[in-house]
Amino acid sequence: MRVLGVDPGLTRCGVGVVDSRPGRRAAFVDVGVVGSDPGASIDLRLLAVADGLETWMDRHVPDVVAVERVFAQHNRGTVMGTAQVAGIAMLVAARRGVPVAMHTPSEVKAAVTGSGRAGKEQVQHMVARILGLDELPRPADAADALALAVTHLWRPAGALQGGDRHELTPAQRAWAAAEQSARRGSHRGAPTRARG
Amino acid sequence: MRVLGVDPGLTRCGVGVVDSRPGRRAAFVDVGVVGSDPGASIDLRLLAVADGLETWMDRHVPDVVAVERVFAQHNRGTVMGTAQVAGIAMLVAARRGVPVAMHTPSEVKAAVTGSGRAGKEQVQHMVARILGLDELPRPADAADALALAVTHLWRPAGALQGGDRHELTPAQRAWAAAEQSARRGSHRGAPTRARG
Repeated sequence: MRVLGVDPGLTRCGVGVVDSRPGRRAAFVDVGVVGSDPGASIDLRLLAVADGLETWMDRHVPDVVAVERVFAQHNRGTVMGTAQVAGIAMLVAARRGVPVAMHTPSEVKAAVTGSGRAGKEQVQHMVARILGLDELPRPADAADALALAVTHLWRPAGALQGGDRHELTPAQRAWAAAEQSARRGSHRGAPTRARG
Repeated sequence: MRVLGVDPGLTRCGVGVVDSRPGRRAAFVDVGVVGSDPGASIDLRLLAVADGLETWMDRHVPDVVAVERVFAQHNRGTVMGTAQVAGIAMLVAARRGVPVAMHTPSEVKAAVTGSGRAGKEQVQHMVARILGLDELPRPADAADALALAVTHLWRPAGALQGGDRHELTPAQRAWAAAEQSARRGSHRGAPTRARG
């Protein structure tokens, strides 16, 4: 399975592609950034990002697109543009019939580091280690897109539906706990635990 | 000039088309709602709205698309979906080379009623009167899309660049004041005046 991770942003939208290998191993395929000119009007910026994402879809033909879930409480100044880019990533995938998954920042941190409260640098180091990269993924923004793709590959299928939890690794258990916590949070309308 | 107004929403996205006539008169063309199934996944909902907006663009070939500006502070629970639909409306227009304009709710209220604090019903009545409709536009949600289109037709061109302000009608002066207020608000990062 091939996953395209998208870390949405209007000026810099991180994109990372990862393949699954037997035994749930993850293999690096590509990483980069799709961006738009901050001086352009918002409609033309969204078009530039959409065109960039189409190019990545054409090049790598992913089986699923994993998008970071954006919360209204985060970074008020840029949150609307970020939400709009996330929406456009979902639209680009849906137009091609490619399923979309969303993961919260704390799910991603939990999946790759074992802690939903890990720092950005720790996530970057773990992504490099998981994917067997000699150095940290560049640009740094795009490491989050790779982490999203890895998170999707490693999602504990069935764990939340009463699956065999004892078969999960510690990181997968932390992932499941973070996801459950985020879901409880969203039911209350204030996913504070998902802020990570 | 033909304007397509878009009042963004994921479940119900209002759309209204208005033509300009000599002497800045506005003529009603069409009004309706583009929607998506609340039970579907978010990516398929965004696709349904995008397809619906494409159909409206095909049918009426507007010269400009006027979209309501969404603020992060509004209606937290649905604001992300609303922002994403606004982004998709802008993308659909940009793909066709149709310019996009954004107007705040208080600009719209000021343009059609003369007061940035007018109620929803007052806006509906004024839209019907301005467009010479025998009854209130239906569905009610879509009246806001017509109001947006009228607002764009009536925008006081040049007024904010030092134009002949004495030539403005009271409604147009209120519009200009609301727009300036919203701009000052957005520079502070908290467009509270634009909440109308």
